[in-house]
Amino acid sequence: MSKLLIRGMVLPMTGEEDFFPEGEVAIENDKIIHVGSKGSTSQDFVPDRVLEYNDDVIMPGFVNTHTHAAMTLLRSYADDLPLMTWLQTKIWPFEAKLTDEDIYWGTMLALGEMIRSGTTTMLDMYSFMDKVADAVLEAGTRGVLARGLIGNAPNGEEALAEGIELVNNYDGAGNGRIKVMLGPHAPYTCNGEYLQKVKKEADRLGVGIHIHLSETEDEINTIRKETGKTPVQWLEELGVFGGHVVAAHCVHLTEEDRKILAKNKVAVAHNPESNMKLSSGTAPIMELLEEGVLVGLGTDGVSSNNNLDMFGEMRSAAFLQKLHKGAAALPAYEILEMATINGAKALGLENVGMLAPGYKADIITIDFDQPHFYPRFSVPSHLVYVAHPGDVRTVVVDGKILMEEKELKTMDIMKVCDEVEKRAKKVAESF
Amino acid sequence: MSKLLIRGMVLPMTGEEDFFPEGEVAIENDKIIHVGSKGSTSQDFVPDRVLEYNDDVIMPGFVNTHTHAAMTLLRSYADDLPLMTWLQTKIWPFEAKLTDEDIYWGTMLALGEMIRSGTTTMLDMYSFMDKVADAVLEAGTRGVLARGLIGNAPNGEEALAEGIELVNNYDGAGNGRIKVMLGPHAPYTCNGEYLQKVKKEADRLGVGIHIHLSETEDEINTIRKETGKTPVQWLEELGVFGGHVVAAHCVHLTEEDRKILAKNKVAVAHNPESNMKLSSGTAPIMELLEEGVLVGLGTDGVSSNNNLDMFGEMRSAAFLQKLHKGAAALPAYEILEMATINGAKALGLENVGMLAPGYKADIITIDFDQPHFYPRFSVPSHLVYVAHPGDVRTVVVDGKILMEEKELKTMDIMKVCDEVEKRAKKVAESF
Repeated sequence: MSKLLIRGMVLPMTGEEDFFPEGEVAIENDKIIHVGSKGSTSQDFVPDRVLEYNDDVIMPGFVNTHTHAAMTLLRSYADDLPLMTWLQTKIWPFEAKLTDEDIYWGTMLALGEMIRSGTTTMLDMYSFMDKVADAVLEAGTRGVLARGLIGNAPNGEEALAEGIELVNNYDGAGNGRIKVMLGPHAPYTCNGEYLQKVKKEADRLGVGIHIHLSETEDEINTIRKETGKTPVQWLEELGVFGGHVVAAHCVHLTEEDRKILAKNKVAVAHNPESNMKLSSGTAPIMELLEEGVLVGLGTDGVSSNNNLDMFGEMRSAAFLQKLHKGAAALPAYEILEMATINGAKALGLENVGMLAPGYKADIITIDFDQPHFYPRFSVPSHLVYVAHPGDVRTVVVDGKILMEEKELKTMDIMKVCDEVEKRAKKVAESF
Repeated sequence: MSKLLIRGMVLPMTGEEDFFPEGEVAIENDKIIHVGSKGSTSQDFVPDRVLEYNDDVIMPGFVNTHTHAAMTLLRSYADDLPLMTWLQTKIWPFEAKLTDEDIYWGTMLALGEMIRSGTTTMLDMYSFMDKVADAVLEAGTRGVLARGLIGNAPNGEEALAEGIELVNNYDGAGNGRIKVMLGPHAPYTCNGEYLQKVKKEADRLGVGIHIHLSETEDEINTIRKETGKTPVQWLEELGVFGGHVVAAHCVHLTEEDRKILAKNKVAVAHNPESNMKLSSGTAPIMELLEEGVLVGLGTDGVSSNNNLDMFGEMRSAAFLQKLHKGAAALPAYEILEMATINGAKALGLENVGMLAPGYKADIITIDFDQPHFYPRFSVPSHLVYVAHPGDVRTVVVDGKILMEEKELKTMDIMKVCDEVEKRAKKVAESF
């Protein structure tokens, strides 16, 4: 049994008023057993280690609700191009060349970057997901994994079989650190029959569905032309909703679409930086929240971001809504909830995303003893509007220390960087 | 005479094709005397010191073209409020309490944060500017300083006298590190007669003018009601343009406004994060560039940002234009030009903003040997879309090392943080 005590300024994300300027979090094995003021943990708790970070903010790790982790391989490979040129001449040809080993190394790099920037859980959709699962198990993070399924592609059936195999082989692995979903890519890449088949399999396996939805105007026009409906209406009619569904983007929604998402308890993964960089548009986050839709934050893949930094994503989410809805829109604490507890709820992780007894010990510490965190008027404002990845000191997932004093403990990160450099350049030079 | 040689991946910002993967910059006293491949500096140059940063990008320091540095005192003091509530109940009452010593310490904190995040020059508009000048001289950075002038306030004339005194006492100080402008706050806080008086004084003194312009719709409506014109038309009619003018924001412009700015060679300080956070709107940067207007980037004050991070500002500038104008808008290299050479030109600094012989040695190095900078497909994309303040290693201004291996050399930064914490909290508790 391992017992860890972390002391500092504790922001448990259990409610806006909850903050311990001199606090502590007690951890036994993979779980938090106590959160409170310094010295409030039971005398019976004798920690193996105490991390004394008086000037750090101690908070739940970030939950990145939408990414394609292995796309680190394509970081800054192609930018500033029109969308279709970018996809057709750069991204797709590159991706077509990737091997399972490439995916493993690209995912390891992503996980290293995520840990360094305070992200402890990701929802990942890509291919060769068994390699992604292996990387998550090795790196020690939490991962909700979905094999991306292009139903209209020649390998649509094969991909679904792989998605099902992923459920069978990995769901619940690593002390529950891995959870598996099915990942039909989007309404415009999967026909209705295929989507219904995926939904049936998801129900049979008892897993959720992750899908891109209403990301661009092109998608809206395509689906309307094919079906006479919006993508959201179309998925509802097909019966895809009802179970656990995480829909990425949801930029272009009608009022009826928003009500459909709310009624069906579809969770939304909001990716503001990707939506801006690819010129997709501004998702109606304020309106979705008014309807009661659960919204988490995601970075999307590195080729459209170009990092996995949830601090930047929080800031961009706030800025984008404020730009359109006024300076009072989406206050800092609400943004923090989206990046932690609400993201975890969106992924169906019941005991992740806040610091409270019984919750998983997924914890990050942020070094506040730096010039940009003075004066200390508001911890939430500092976290959302000021902090950056370089401020993360120590990261714990499932009770284990994955990074301590900025040093990664579960991977040889420079070897990972070298492998990715070599592999990515080789792919780029191959066509 | 001091001689310094810096080796690494040199991005001189002299043109998009110019890059030395293994390069070096030779510095004699305050100036760059050579930029080229490793070993290309004349054998006669015997450096006192060599900084070998093979995995760092060596580039010009950032030029922050609009800020109110001492507002670090108000960092995260008040956020997420409607604009007028924020100004009237929080910002203005707080600012009214600030003493000259507060301004000194607040500015020192800002300069510490700027150096740490790679900014070597700022255009600052505030009060007690002699204290700001002292801080700039002490910290070692470059500063273009303007006493903010609220012409319609009771102390309008007194402020102008202070502004003129600042020119007389500080213009050219610190081996030219300080340059002074006059700073009429905005068309809606300075009446026409006052603006003309300021312009006359600027011409007499041979200095430029820094002004907030067309920032919000409210401003447009106010000026149109008072004068029947847009703020830009109004300033042109008053004769404020013609000399060196840096206009901050320029969010709400008509086509005619843009042509007026171009014709009069008014430089624009674009502050995308402030414009988003305060819901001011999206400045028409693409259109301004098409008209040939010189555009630099600024963070604005910390109370509307809430940091002085030019990396974030570059990213937001790119994202905001792409959101509205398509994914190909404002490529990374153009953004870097805005943040360096074009910002310097906007401030009228003739030999600042690029690495070339004869230019001032204002140089930053960025540690690229980190996971988020792999693979290394594009240095400009990495700098704009990936980098953050924690990546800056070493900073040189006017040939002097202000930060080395992340350690500030010209100030006791923890003392500065403590002073600001104490002073800011005291002000906040006083009303």
